[in-house]
Amino acid sequence: MIAEETLKEALRKNKLRSETFGNLEYLRFTDDFKEVPRGTLLFKDNILWGYPHIGRIFQLTTGIPEQFQAPFWVEEKVDGYNVRVFMHEGEIYALTRGGYVCAFSTDRVLDFIDPVFFEENPDLVLCMEVAGPENPYVEESPPYVKEDVKFFLFDIMQKNRQGFLPYREKLRLIEKYNLPSVERYGLYTPKQIEDLKALLRRLNEEKREGVVLKEDSERDKRVKYITSYANLNDIRITSLNMLGIPADYYTNRLLRLALFIEEEGLEKTQELFRELGEAFLSGLFQACKMAREEGKVRRVFRCKFRKRENALIFMEQMKHASVHIQVNQLSLRQEGEFWLLEFEKVFLNMTGLLGHLLKGGSLID
Amino acid sequence: MIAEETLKEALRKNKLRSETFGNLEYLRFTDDFKEVPRGTLLFKDNILWGYPHIGRIFQLTTGIPEQFQAPFWVEEKVDGYNVRVFMHEGEIYALTRGGYVCAFSTDRVLDFIDPVFFEENPDLVLCMEVAGPENPYVEESPPYVKEDVKFFLFDIMQKNRQGFLPYREKLRLIEKYNLPSVERYGLYTPKQIEDLKALLRRLNEEKREGVVLKEDSERDKRVKYITSYANLNDIRITSLNMLGIPADYYTNRLLRLALFIEEEGLEKTQELFRELGEAFLSGLFQACKMAREEGKVRRVFRCKFRKRENALIFMEQMKHASVHIQVNQLSLRQEGEFWLLEFEKVFLNMTGLLGHLLKGGSLID
Repeated sequence: MIAEETLKEALRKNKLRSETFGNLEYLRFTDDFKEVPRGTLLFKDNILWGYPHIGRIFQLTTGIPEQFQAPFWVEEKVDGYNVRVFMHEGEIYALTRGGYVCAFSTDRVLDFIDPVFFEENPDLVLCMEVAGPENPYVEESPPYVKEDVKFFLFDIMQKNRQGFLPYREKLRLIEKYNLPSVERYGLYTPKQIEDLKALLRRLNEEKREGVVLKEDSERDKRVKYITSYANLNDIRITSLNMLGIPADYYTNRLLRLALFIEEEGLEKTQELFRELGEAFLSGLFQACKMAREEGKVRRVFRCKFRKRENALIFMEQMKHASVHIQVNQLSLRQEGEFWLLEFEKVFLNMTGLLGHLLKGGSLID
Repeated sequence: MIAEETLKEALRKNKLRSETFGNLEYLRFTDDFKEVPRGTLLFKDNILWGYPHIGRIFQLTTGIPEQFQAPFWVEEKVDGYNVRVFMHEGEIYALTRGGYVCAFSTDRVLDFIDPVFFEENPDLVLCMEVAGPENPYVEESPPYVKEDVKFFLFDIMQKNRQGFLPYREKLRLIEKYNLPSVERYGLYTPKQIEDLKALLRRLNEEKREGVVLKEDSERDKRVKYITSYANLNDIRITSLNMLGIPADYYTNRLLRLALFIEEEGLEKTQELFRELGEAFLSGLFQACKMAREEGKVRRVFRCKFRKRENALIFMEQMKHASVHIQVNQLSLRQEGEFWLLEFEKVFLNMTGLLGHLLKGGSLID
């Protein structure tokens, strides 16, 4: 439970806000606040805890012995967005990391999860990654999802409780309900660093994001490790909207790359230098081209809904998501059993600044 | 003059602070405040205005016609640090951009300027760039200063007045007093974009920083333009201390590079990609190496003083300059007619974070 005093203070500081989705009403922690993680939700009769932060290690050789005292489970970290799926008063919802009910994820979740799971386990919360080329949030997508999206389970939580179900209990439920899961690579001991490195070399070649390591122990210690492919790809994908990205996003990824190479040796360094430079500049070139030719820097997203109404609700949600991104619906049409929504995100900072500079404007810095 | 009300408000907000240097006492604007630029100094009987910001254009083809209505003077922008040199009660001082009397620059300025200039022109202020491999502030240095430092005049101001002496008046004084000046490339018309581009290609090959353009008109409009060499070099030099650099430093330079290539065409792009990647990562590798081998990330500086006492004062100034940089004196010894000071700047953010990560620590982001 959360202390009464914490709730009052959070309300007063506007860190705990009232939200609605259809008839659903709830309170949402907008940021980490004291011990409460961002995205924690309060309903009349229960709490859905936010998904906790997981620390990242930058090198395996030292990181594994430093972090783990026991064998750990290794799972793929899928490149998508994190949702928590739960049932409330007979309806199934999917929440974003920040704690909004997502109209898209909620619309599609039953394509991937049998509702029997929630009928038999109404107090469980499925933590899943939604990934694929037709997701409305992230431009990246794992190589093996060729179209639309897929949901991948990686953790199970309980209502009113922090922490996760034990790993073996999760495996049992995956088996029993045929839940779609992230790839699992089994149990490694802290001595198996070379095996883990070999796994990560393979994942890197397969253009996957990385791994999450979960200690097989009471404390359930977790860390993640990201492939250099994913670090480069993050830069490549976001550079189109470089001015809209938090400032430390790039320095953080550069540090990861440097420490990766520092650990792995320098043989392919020249090629990595070239890829890194290209990752930074190719998006910026593309942004210049768009600003010149179309007068705006934008990215087009497509996603498929079961219900037309959910697509409209989703568009409303997106339009209020950021003051730096203008969201415009391009089309919404029926295609087979789906409603196909197309919309664009116009990156206002890039559009404004590049427009100014390409016209010959000056900037004081 | 500055309005009484502005002074009071600046004092109250701690934007105007009392400073001393030896027997000299003055008030200093620590930041831009209303119309007063950072580094503006108040003495009992006069004001030294701060050096104003100059806008930067990112492309020449559109930038020149957009910015200039008349021919403009073209001068080299030298890669060093900006000082204002002036006489006060018979003593000659050099101020940093921020408005501190710099013990190093003050110690050395008379090696480059004949004091007769100030005896005959006590109300003039020389705006100069101090550059060279043995300067205590910036790691970059123009290729033609092979040792020590040099002072290069680029503007002349008057006490109690904003703005600069007319260009031709500056030329007359340079001639008359044999003042060391930045390279001057003469007067260009706004039509001479191809000539200007050719000049900048040459400066780029010669590893120079860029140009400042000064309109030959009453309004004295100015803009600067930086070579891609200098943009890359900024990244290469600072990446050792990436975490200590303001967040937009890198995105700004990436934008400059992208717009440079967008204007100049893409033929050498692959090589530039490689150079850019190397610029980012080579400093980080070096930082990792230092953190591993020496337990700290640092850079060593050397500079030469005429007077031992000034070196000691300078060390005191540096030790209080930043909470993120620890400054340690390494040695101070006489060498010919100079006192040679060696000191190190230890970059505490890099040292702390890399130490943590190389030991296998994790980071939440």
